[in-house]
Amino acid sequence: MEETSDLYDVYETDIHPVWTDHQHQSLEDPESVECLRRKIKYYFMNPCEKYHARGRKPWKLILQIIKIAIITIQLVSFGLSNQMVVTFREENLMTFKHLFLKDYVDGSMDTYAVYRQADVYDRIDYVIKQFGLLHNNTVGNHEYEKNGTNFTPLSMCQDFYRNGTLYPGNETFEIDAHVDTECIKVYPMRWQASREKLPHFELYFRRMLSVRIEFVLKAINLQTVRHRELPDCYDFKVIITFDNQAHSGRIKIDLENDVEINECVEWKVTGASARNIFLTVLFDCLIIVTCITSFCLCTRSILNGIQLQFEYTLSCRTHSDKEVPWSDRLEFVNGWYILIIVSDTLTIIGSILKIEIQTKALTSYDVCSIFLGTGTMFVWIGVIRYMGYFRKYNTLILTLRAAFPNVIRFICCAGIIYLSYCLCGWIVLGPYHEKASIPDLEHSV
Amino acid sequence: MEETSDLYDVYETDIHPVWTDHQHQSLEDPESVECLRRKIKYYFMNPCEKYHARGRKPWKLILQIIKIAIITIQLVSFGLSNQMVVTFREENLMTFKHLFLKDYVDGSMDTYAVYRQADVYDRIDYVIKQFGLLHNNTVGNHEYEKNGTNFTPLSMCQDFYRNGTLYPGNETFEIDAHVDTECIKVYPMRWQASREKLPHFELYFRRMLSVRIEFVLKAINLQTVRHRELPDCYDFKVIITFDNQAHSGRIKIDLENDVEINECVEWKVTGASARNIFLTVLFDCLIIVTCITSFCLCTRSILNGIQLQFEYTLSCRTHSDKEVPWSDRLEFVNGWYILIIVSDTLTIIGSILKIEIQTKALTSYDVCSIFLGTGTMFVWIGVIRYMGYFRKYNTLILTLRAAFPNVIRFICCAGIIYLSYCLCGWIVLGPYHEKASIPDLEHSV
Amino acid sequence: MEETSDLYDVYETDIHPVWTDHQHQSLEDPESVECLRRKIKYYFMNPCEKYHARGRKPWKLILQIIKIAIITIQLVSFGLSNQMVVTFREENLMTFKHLFLKDYVDGSMDTYAVYRQADVYDRIDYVIKQFGLLHNNTVGNHEYEKNGTNFTPLSMCQDFYRNGTLYPGNETFEIDAHVDTECIKVYPMRWQASREKLPHFELYFRRMLSVRIEFVLKAINLQTVRHRELPDCYDFKVIITFDNQAHSGRIKIDLENDVEINECVEWKVTGASARNIFLTVLFDCLIIVTCITSFCLCTRSILNGIQLQFEYTLSCRTHSDKEVPWSDRLEFVNGWYILIIVSDTLTIIGSILKIEIQTKALTSYDVCSIFLGTGTMFVWIGVIRYMGYFRKYNTLILTLRAAFPNVIRFICCAGIIYLSYCLCGWIVLGPYHEKASIPDLEHSV
Amino acid sequence: MEETSDLYDVYETDIHPVWTDHQHQSLEDPESVECLRRKIKYYFMNPCEKYHARGRKPWKLILQIIKIAIITIQLVSFGLSNQMVVTFREENLMTFKHLFLKDYVDGSMDTYAVYRQADVYDRIDYVIKQFGLLHNNTVGNHEYEKNGTNFTPLSMCQDFYRNGTLYPGNETFEIDAHVDTECIKVYPMRWQASREKLPHFELYFRRMLSVRIEFVLKAINLQTVRHRELPDCYDFKVIITFDNQAHSGRIKIDLENDVEINECVEWKVTGASARNIFLTVLFDCLIIVTCITSFCLCTRSILNGIQLQFEYTLSCRTHSDKEVPWSDRLEFVNGWYILIIVSDTLTIIGSILKIEIQTKALTSYDVCSIFLGTGTMFVWIGVIRYMGYFRKYNTLILTLRAAFPNVIRFICCAGIIYLSYCLCGWIVLGPYHEKASIPDLEHSV
Repeated sequence: MEETSDLYDVYETDIHPVWTDHQHQSLEDPESVECLRRKIKYYFMNPCEKYHARGRKPWKLILQIIKIAIITIQLVSFGLSNQMVVTFREENLMTFKHLFLKDYVDGSMDTYAVYRQADVYDRIDYVIKQFGLLHNNTVGNHEYEKNGTNFTPLSMCQDFYRNGTLYPGNETFEIDAHVDTECIKVYPMRWQASREKLPHFELYFRRMLSVRIEFVLKAINLQTVRHRELPDCYDFKVIITFDNQAHSGRIKIDLENDVEINECVEWKVTGASARNIFLTVLFDCLIIVTCITSFCLCTRSILNGIQLQFEYTLSCRTHSDKEVPWSDRLEFVNGWYILIIVSDTLTIIGSILKIEIQTKALTSYDVCSIFLGTGTMFVWIGVIRYMGYFRKYNTLILTLRAAFPNVIRFICCAGIIYLSYCLCGWIVLGPYHEKASIPDLEHSV
Repeated sequence: MEETSDLYDVYETDIHPVWTDHQHQSLEDPESVECLRRKIKYYFMNPCEKYHARGRKPWKLILQIIKIAIITIQLVSFGLSNQMVVTFREENLMTFKHLFLKDYVDGSMDTYAVYRQADVYDRIDYVIKQFGLLHNNTVGNHEYEKNGTNFTPLSMCQDFYRNGTLYPGNETFEIDAHVDTECIKVYPMRWQASREKLPHFELYFRRMLSVRIEFVLKAINLQTVRHRELPDCYDFKVIITFDNQAHSGRIKIDLENDVEINECVEWKVTGASARNIFLTVLFDCLIIVTCITSFCLCTRSILNGIQLQFEYTLSCRTHSDKEVPWSDRLEFVNGWYILIIVSDTLTIIGSILKIEIQTKALTSYDVCSIFLGTGTMFVWIGVIRYMGYFRKYNTLILTLRAAFPNVIRFICCAGIIYLSYCLCGWIVLGPYHEKASIPDLEHSV
Repeated sequence: MEETSDLYDVYETDIHPVWTDHQHQSLEDPESVECLRRKIKYYFMNPCEKYHARGRKPWKLILQIIKIAIITIQLVSFGLSNQMVVTFREENLMTFKHLFLKDYVDGSMDTYAVYRQADVYDRIDYVIKQFGLLHNNTVGNHEYEKNGTNFTPLSMCQDFYRNGTLYPGNETFEIDAHVDTECIKVYPMRWQASREKLPHFELYFRRMLSVRIEFVLKAINLQTVRHRELPDCYDFKVIITFDNQAHSGRIKIDLENDVEINECVEWKVTGASARNIFLTVLFDCLIIVTCITSFCLCTRSILNGIQLQFEYTLSCRTHSDKEVPWSDRLEFVNGWYILIIVSDTLTIIGSILKIEIQTKALTSYDVCSIFLGTGTMFVWIGVIRYMGYFRKYNTLILTLRAAFPNVIRFICCAGIIYLSYCLCGWIVLGPYHEKASIPDLEHSV
Repeated sequence: MEETSDLYDVYETDIHPVWTDHQHQSLEDPESVECLRRKIKYYFMNPCEKYHARGRKPWKLILQIIKIAIITIQLVSFGLSNQMVVTFREENLMTFKHLFLKDYVDGSMDTYAVYRQADVYDRIDYVIKQFGLLHNNTVGNHEYEKNGTNFTPLSMCQDFYRNGTLYPGNETFEIDAHVDTECIKVYPMRWQASREKLPHFELYFRRMLSVRIEFVLKAINLQTVRHRELPDCYDFKVIITFDNQAHSGRIKIDLENDVEINECVEWKVTGASARNIFLTVLFDCLIIVTCITSFCLCTRSILNGIQLQFEYTLSCRTHSDKEVPWSDRLEFVNGWYILIIVSDTLTIIGSILKIEIQTKALTSYDVCSIFLGTGTMFVWIGVIRYMGYFRKYNTLILTLRAAFPNVIRFICCAGIIYLSYCLCGWIVLGPYHEKASIPDLEHSV
């Protein structure tokens, strides 16, 4: 009896002083109350105390520790594999900029613009010429898309106001605000073979809104072969935009890159075993099993807690006619368990996606990385819980929990002033120093 | 009686402990005093308390909340429209730099200078040639200004000392410090037609102070058509300065851009309805009405407060022969109401300007944005007041108010030391590291 | 009596509690003691209290306020004039870099180096050619120095080890570490006239330590004429160094600029009156007079304080046989007065220098700016003293004075750890990341 | 007796309050206990107190002060000498980049890449041509490595997949993941003499993984001669890599530099005495002797402390039957002495290495700098100990010691959250903004 009362004190002072006040008042009398008190006491013990009190081995704790280790390994391995995909995508974008934009220098995209009519024609010609020469030029394995036996053409479209006569010198104008589009198509092979001149294309600078050049290139990410994964096939839709919407004499040129990752139609890889993939999938399955176990155990604990809370509420009501406040009731629901359940759910979904990606049934690297990443983050944050088992940390965490609402209030107050300042600054100063003010707003959001 | 006394305590402890001291001493006795006490108590209640005490609905509070919402919407819509104007202006400046300054690269304006005589002639020739070719070159809708049937010419002026013979080798010089100006005019069409050489122009480098090239270009901001606003006509006065005032061998070249926004003389827009403008103007009118209502209500409250203060002063003087100090009297004037009145005034002026701009009667986007921006900022800051109605925040605000004078004092003290350091640093170190020190001074101001 | 005792209390609590303890114990008895007590009391009063106590007008305070105003005006006017000088110097350095260094781009000085033998010869040829063409090229008023009727030549010197045969392939070498110097001179006119080839000059790359090209150019700073000051004549000694001390295959090129400012030999300025200079000198004289007055008054006050201290020490010794500790004795010497005396001395010297510069007897702008700058800084810092006359600030300053030794101790302690870290970092990491570590050391000094 | 008890109190309050509690309880009775108490008291005194108590001169303190001075001098002298070595190495790397990489600009290494097939051939040709011309080009004293009488050749190797047919257009591929290597060798002299074309070399872009060009250059660091040190001979293994592992169309080019520092085989230096080296070695020996002395003294003190601790433990056990806790026992082991011993050991090893380097028996500058650097840092940190002898600092240090565990705990807790955030961020956001996330991880490690 001595030892347990000692433990009980620990529990009283450390975890919920509020709740124990009620307990003292209400559960003074009969045997059933004593039984409930013991149950509650045991429920709020931490694994070490449970081991000391009833000798129960901390299986759940051990499971969590193993889970942290294997989830982290999985995340890192997936991260490395994901990085290869993203690197391939980004380096291709850089390659297209260097191949199709004349005089492009790394990092100059912000100031890449033309200011003369001749330059606009020149840049467009350059793109079309380079598209025709791609095969002999590129260092990578880019190829034109095939539509049956023919290659799909490059398409160039001009958007312009339907009608418009402008005389800025006389300050008079007449404009029809409807937007028309005019397109031409350039087939790589035909144009290249005949060595004829480029198709004629006139730009109506005064009325023009934009010129868009679009074409599709295909490539294979061979890099993954060396890491014993199957290569993916990529479709790059390159979009080059000449933006003249402001009609300010400056045409901004932009190159974008829509990527689609597909499983290749036919492949044959020799010199690299498929065993590696099998092992990875096995490891992912192990993680799924671990997470399901952890999920079940935590759900059971939470259900136990809720049941105990109902018993306690009932007991309080019958013995001392007092309603247990909500804040005390919530003490029975352990937030850490909920965190673990959420993290388990995320990890299970992420692992299933990963297996699909590994077996080339899916290529959604992004979604999978979000699931696995947030899952792992929650598991790691859960580690702080185990620190609560040491006395000193407990105090720290309790203090933080107490200070939280005040901090939130202060942030609210400061936030409103800052937001109003931002709004005003954005309107008054904003447009004159674009770089200074707009990011301010973005940072505040 | 119980409840109101309870409320009264709230008021005592929270809002003006100083003032209530006097009250306790002076207002002990008759019935009229009790009446005044109640009035004052009611006056200092917040909307919630007023509702509890007398059941008065918080109309003023609801009005303010509505005002915040609609003013913010108005500000954002105006901000977006204003940004289009500023973007047009800035992109035109960039265009002119690229068109008229030889070898100009984005962001190199700080180091854009010439060091050789031949280069100076070369840059001037380039400007004049490009001015002549503008029509065939520019991607925007720039045109020369017309003065009747003729185009207005480009004017190039040279400022130089009237007379000066310098022999630095012998360390002797003779100079007449009067400044003379010599100008030539270049008509775009005439020069271009005859293909003759540029007019002869000699620069007296040793005596020259500066060369200024000025010309006017016109353009129409078509961009706004797409946002269902009428396009404005712009006059850009381009000023290129070759600055040789230091005679240090370095001639700094600068391009500036004086913009004038005018209503176009004649226009015809099809394919875009004018209904949108009508709705915007209606919305602005709604804001003006709301602000006038809010203005009246707050003025009334302030007048009530002043009247109450006089009654209270009188009562104190008659009953207890004590003068009410100024700090207590000022408690009757609610600072928040003044803030709201100021913000209302600004918003009303801003909204009227906005209507004028929308209907193309005015083009002063800058002034309007200052009025609307500061008005909205004040309204948002006023939100903090409503936080004072919650207990905890009240303490926060009271603490801040108490600490304010000390902070001001500390800033004064530190400011003087910093200012003296800046002054000294500016003189001793300043000129050697221009970029380091001068901004320091500017930041401190 | 009532009023003065009140004042006395102010003095006790505010300024030196330590000292007053002694006073209470020792000065209880006779009349002479009472007289001394009054004297001391009066001595420690601030101007306001003195005015209240004996009606003495605060002349010294008024003098200081006037001094601050006029000294600041003088500093700003000198600062503007000094900036013109420094700008001229710096812009000339930029000009020389652009004229004499091939392919120089603003801001590239750190990476301006050559790596090939042909490039070294090329850069040297470029310098010599540009020196010959200077007259037709420069936009400023640069001229060659004249030595009688002849121009002074450009001199090019090569430093190299006296003897050295290196066979890195066999890892053998033989070297004589004595350094020899070989020079040639190039006269601008002669070389230019005959259009003959540059004089032959062979570089011994393997043994060479450096090549130095030196020449002198003269210029007149005309800029000052417009600000009604007389122009100065400048001698620029341009030194271009090709540094090969490391023999690493990289020859760093550096251009330096030794400036000498002289009074011009003969001049004649029309169109600008000399009255302005006369007024400036008059203003400087006024400042000197003000500072001398302030200096005398403060010296008198300090002497009074020292005398009073001796009287007090004597009185203590005779009446209560106690030695007055040094900390109490120092209380009699007012630190603020010493600050004012120092600032006055600096300002007087600075003003005399300024008059000399204005009348072109001296050209040491730097020294003068240091004197005037520090003088003004001290005067401004002295303003804080007057803040001590307000109660609240006094507390602030006393608190700061009490906390000072602890802060110093902490800085010592942290300084040692930081210094040791820097030393270690400099040795271990330093050389590999030059930019990261060396500045660290410099910042710590 | 009075004085020692006074000293004793100092010791009690200042250094280990915990331990003295036990002492009070246990050592109340006999004479031997009194003797032990005095020993312990003496042991815990600081040098000043020891001098006051028994008149012992603080030899150890003086030795430490001398040590700090000479070690710092040694470190600075070695640092300067080391910097020369590293500068030579880094400037050679810069030189190689400028000589062998076409169109290389300082600082552009990150974006130095090629995107076209013709460019790849062009860059490779450039390297080989420049390698052949090195002799006539380089400004430094670089030479080819000799292998007997022949020069060692430049080797160029191509890594590629053994077999591979890719049709990205059809999304089909067949690849053999084994990597083959194909090399050619280019002898500088032979190729240069015959002026024949470069050896034929075909790149299989679709299958190629990388092209590596390697060659060895030799040089002598003559710079050290001027600082009276013997020059070293350097072998630079230059490795230029064309990295195509991603097959993304971008081939990144990288130049690396493996340096080997050797003693030269034969040398002859005149004009610089060898005496300097002799003096330096002597100084190093002096430091070694000083450090050994300090090492011995500190070891003795620690042994004394341990012995005393055993006596004290025994005494406690016999007299009061109490076990002395470990925390009290550890008080007998002076941490500062351990710091000094570690620092002495490091400095002795470092100094021996330095002598070896000075006499050209070794060239491991890096290792030596780590030993000397950390050694000196520890000695300097040890200075803080002497500050503990002043009362005020003592308090400071004791406070820091008490706060330490809490700080560690907080860092642990925050570290885990941060680490989890980094892991998640690295996976989810990382690959998209390489520069933002990866350094985060690196910084956190």
